[in-house]
Amino acid sequence: MDRVSGDIRRQRLEQQIRFIVEVDKVKNIFRQTYLSDGQRKENDAEHSWHLALAAVLLKEHMEEEADLTKVMVMVLIHDLVEIDAGDTYAYDAAGALTKRDREVKAADRIFGLLPEDQGAYFRALWDEFEAYETPDAKFAHLLDNFQPLLLNDASDGKSWTEHGVHKSQVCRRNERIPETSEIVWEKMLEIMEKHIERGHLKAD
Amino acid sequence: MDRVSGDIRRQRLEQQIRFIVEVDKVKNIFRQTYLSDGQRKENDAEHSWHLALAAVLLKEHMEEEADLTKVMVMVLIHDLVEIDAGDTYAYDAAGALTKRDREVKAADRIFGLLPEDQGAYFRALWDEFEAYETPDAKFAHLLDNFQPLLLNDASDGKSWTEHGVHKSQVCRRNERIPETSEIVWEKMLEIMEKHIERGHLKAD
Repeated sequence: MDRVSGDIRRQRLEQQIRFIVEVDKVKNIFRQTYLSDGQRKENDAEHSWHLALAAVLLKEHMEEEADLTKVMVMVLIHDLVEIDAGDTYAYDAAGALTKRDREVKAADRIFGLLPEDQGAYFRALWDEFEAYETPDAKFAHLLDNFQPLLLNDASDGKSWTEHGVHKSQVCRRNERIPETSEIVWEKMLEIMEKHIERGHLKAD
Repeated sequence: MDRVSGDIRRQRLEQQIRFIVEVDKVKNIFRQTYLSDGQRKENDAEHSWHLALAAVLLKEHMEEEADLTKVMVMVLIHDLVEIDAGDTYAYDAAGALTKRDREVKAADRIFGLLPEDQGAYFRALWDEFEAYETPDAKFAHLLDNFQPLLLNDASDGKSWTEHGVHKSQVCRRNERIPETSEIVWEKMLEIMEKHIERGHLKAD
């Protein structure tokens, strides 16, 4: 490579490294969901890894065609804003009021560490995820909601029990899943019914 | 969907869910590398998340063209065999002798949980990673080696210090990085030299 393009590439690599090391912090952002063994809560990095892997497997069940690569990148970065903004539990009404402002500021700072083109790419994916309109965003949200439900199922509804969650809250949060994947929604309902019977989730 | 294809899809979904819940265990497989803050060791799920994200950013630095989607899936699944086989530290010579056998048995079991086509796809990617021959496998190995080096750098060489690692061991492990990405190798050497000066890595 020639001198000038070598310098630019090295500068890009330095920015990329700064970002890669900065986002390591997401491994210390803990969620309310327990691992399947119920022993400890899951962090955002583990959660995002799980969603990206599940994306590969579950794409076939989506009602609308999705772009797998885009969805994988979307779920890998969707929680990075929590490095600054913290995790807001799905059923925390007070936290929800300030969540958007906190997260936009975080997105500006964190994606701003990258070379401009790559920062803009991640920011656009995060905006698309937040807007929840496209088939790719809908698939990403399905993953983001289905995975914790599977962990709740595996850990005997531990997080639901701790927070006294009602079925209606889960249904409201998942109101767009039926149009995203009928078969996944059917499975989610089945899991919810099981945990209502066992007393881990409150019927309304 | 008609009755028959509906039954097949539901059966596939059950197999996919079983796999998704099973691989949750990789969040409890801890590596020798510390997080950037040096406070605790990293687990395989966090590590794999970090590699997939870094793949998006570092692809531009590879000497050979790589398939991003394939590399992302490859790094997301590359450590799943450790659920049964455990983590073998990069510089553990005794563990290395039995590693391959333990990991092949694990791959048979874990990828065998999936619908046949998806299990075969993951197994082929894992075999390709292990063979370390294609541009995609070389990129995946670069990520697998560069990311812990960045974490070692951020945590003041904590893991190197604990294990008394020599530069020659790191170089041997990374002997194919120069041909994979000259610019990344240059950066790796720079980091190693810094930690030799600081006494975290032994010169030979």
